[in-house]
Amino acid sequence: MKFELLATDGAARAGRLTTASGVIETPMFMPVGTHAAVKALGPDDLRAAGAQIVLANTYHLFLRPGHDLVRELGGLHRFMGWDRPILTDSGGFQVFSLSKLRKITEAGVEFRSPVDGSTHFLSPEVAVEIQQALGADIIHALDECLAYPVSRADAERSLELTLRWAERSRAAHAGPRRGDQAMFGIVQGGVDADLRRQAARATVAIGFDGYAIGGMAVGEPKPAMYDLTELVAGLLPAHQPRYLMGVGKPEDLVHSVARGVDMFDCVLPTRNARNGQVFTPDGPLTLKQARFTRDHAPLDAECGCYACRGFSRAYLRHLFMAGELLSYRLLTLHNVTFFLRLVGEMRAAIVAGAFRAFRERFFARYAVTLSADDSGDDAPDGAA
Amino acid sequence: MKFELLATDGAARAGRLTTASGVIETPMFMPVGTHAAVKALGPDDLRAAGAQIVLANTYHLFLRPGHDLVRELGGLHRFMGWDRPILTDSGGFQVFSLSKLRKITEAGVEFRSPVDGSTHFLSPEVAVEIQQALGADIIHALDECLAYPVSRADAERSLELTLRWAERSRAAHAGPRRGDQAMFGIVQGGVDADLRRQAARATVAIGFDGYAIGGMAVGEPKPAMYDLTELVAGLLPAHQPRYLMGVGKPEDLVHSVARGVDMFDCVLPTRNARNGQVFTPDGPLTLKQARFTRDHAPLDAECGCYACRGFSRAYLRHLFMAGELLSYRLLTLHNVTFFLRLVGEMRAAIVAGAFRAFRERFFARYAVTLSADDSGDDAPDGAA
Repeated sequence: MKFELLATDGAARAGRLTTASGVIETPMFMPVGTHAAVKALGPDDLRAAGAQIVLANTYHLFLRPGHDLVRELGGLHRFMGWDRPILTDSGGFQVFSLSKLRKITEAGVEFRSPVDGSTHFLSPEVAVEIQQALGADIIHALDECLAYPVSRADAERSLELTLRWAERSRAAHAGPRRGDQAMFGIVQGGVDADLRRQAARATVAIGFDGYAIGGMAVGEPKPAMYDLTELVAGLLPAHQPRYLMGVGKPEDLVHSVARGVDMFDCVLPTRNARNGQVFTPDGPLTLKQARFTRDHAPLDAECGCYACRGFSRAYLRHLFMAGELLSYRLLTLHNVTFFLRLVGEMRAAIVAGAFRAFRERFFARYAVTLSADDSGDDAPDGAA
Repeated sequence: MKFELLATDGAARAGRLTTASGVIETPMFMPVGTHAAVKALGPDDLRAAGAQIVLANTYHLFLRPGHDLVRELGGLHRFMGWDRPILTDSGGFQVFSLSKLRKITEAGVEFRSPVDGSTHFLSPEVAVEIQQALGADIIHALDECLAYPVSRADAERSLELTLRWAERSRAAHAGPRRGDQAMFGIVQGGVDADLRRQAARATVAIGFDGYAIGGMAVGEPKPAMYDLTELVAGLLPAHQPRYLMGVGKPEDLVHSVARGVDMFDCVLPTRNARNGQVFTPDGPLTLKQARFTRDHAPLDAECGCYACRGFSRAYLRHLFMAGELLSYRLLTLHNVTFFLRLVGEMRAAIVAGAFRAFRERFFARYAVTLSADDSGDDAPDGAA
């Protein structure tokens, strides 16, 4: 894997990440394909939306259909019919957020499958083995994800464990089995600036191909998230990619690119589409609202996606209200296209040295919505 | 509308139906788009599958979003983004099969909406008005559909009413408001050969652009359905199209084309896809079965659809078992493609004067499955 930093504008960066399966232009957003499929979209739709990389969840694919089956069928790319880059997470976040009866030891974590109740064991070595079988272009070291809030003592203990697991993950992904797969380390450390600093330095010291910032958007206040992102990004090597896990809303992407982040993933565009929410340059729209009943306009007049080219808000609202499956595809296609257009526009602005003006224009127009769920969401999309 | 009979082979016919929105090559299968969308497919998918015409349900669109709204948004073609031909049924079948508290009088039928409980009245004149507002290329006279079995007296009374309603429908669709819309009459008459004969002659005497054979596949034995289809088709004008409503399975299509039918619709390919059943030249496959878990092969090696070109049975089974929305799209796309390929192959065989050999080859290979639901199904696809 090769990362080229092509331009900077303040802390914002435009780069090019070359993986075994192709090039990713950063900043980039990765649609989430939990079960080896981005919900409601085919690879044809993803290409049309401009997706350069998708994320798949190690935890879910381990439980169903199993990494051995995926390997036997030629790996994740061939299995899901997607020949562009794929990134897998380590499974850690889902073990901690979705599994019952977790038992964490130094060795790893034992958990029970929510699919069939069977008991499994995930260790740094197993997480690497699974991800090698899946065959993604970018894989991750196993980490422990803490809930928010957490005591300082627990955060310290957890960080120490994550760092030891990071070393073991790194060691497990050495030698010939490493192949073309890049591995990212995950910077944890909760909401404490000192711990985050310590986490960033120690993770960098172990040495990875890139660095993920984990444990964000788990309930902490937005300003804390932005501050910690800025802090951690500032401690990561300039010549390597930085990935803010599970973030986020369009405004979070803009704030985080401004702080030096290169890559994002979030279920927001896909999940919200299935709830009838679509993103536009003026802010999100809720299609359930009666005001769209007779609306001839497309979802977003500036969008070139199939949903916006071919259909009115009135029709898409009708499909959504009638529970038609086509609505999920079309609304998801639009939302994913919107997120990919947003990162593309940020990239162009950075290259042009005009990112500050872009931010101002974006926030002058985009109506930020405040809601109970006012955070990104690292939970898998439609988790089992 | 113009119908050209291009070739016959025994009773089987190959024709070309030219409507205001384009040409339909018969025999033809019409995917069912109940709520102005074929379930799980976009117009792009339908084009890729080779669909030349889709059916939309008057009853459902009347209740939601309402025909006035569809008219205001430019009619059904523009509303659903489908510029090829559209056929609407009269709404009769659904009023009788889906509505609560029906009250039938000479004037029409009063019923309660299952969507919101509101009360509505459908008459021949109202059914025409709704269909004119929707703007399909082919519309239908209102008929009364009887359940099976039914007494001879009830069947006679019902047929008389259907014929009087057919005359009123015909009259309502005369004059300038008729525009480019063709109207089909529906031949009812239950399972009694005499009544069917009488129905066919009387409906033809009223004079329509084409003729539908209704009230089939409602529970009567398959041999009766084939015999009655043959009887009615033989009484319809050779130079006009014949449409067997709500039929059916692949084998029913072959048997019915052999008896002189030109057009079909059925929810089978779409509904069964959502239950994990896919059609192949060797018969249907049930993807739930464990034997497909590690199956590298495509659903149907002879099919050129996107699902068959890009994905293994193992992957499609995985998607289906995980409840992934993409599975509904891909399996539906395949099934609709299969049905359209089947009618296309029949057409080519008729043109070549080789339909008998085609039938023999088809039945030698296709494993007909017997099930409790051993009939076509005129019920709307995923009715409200």
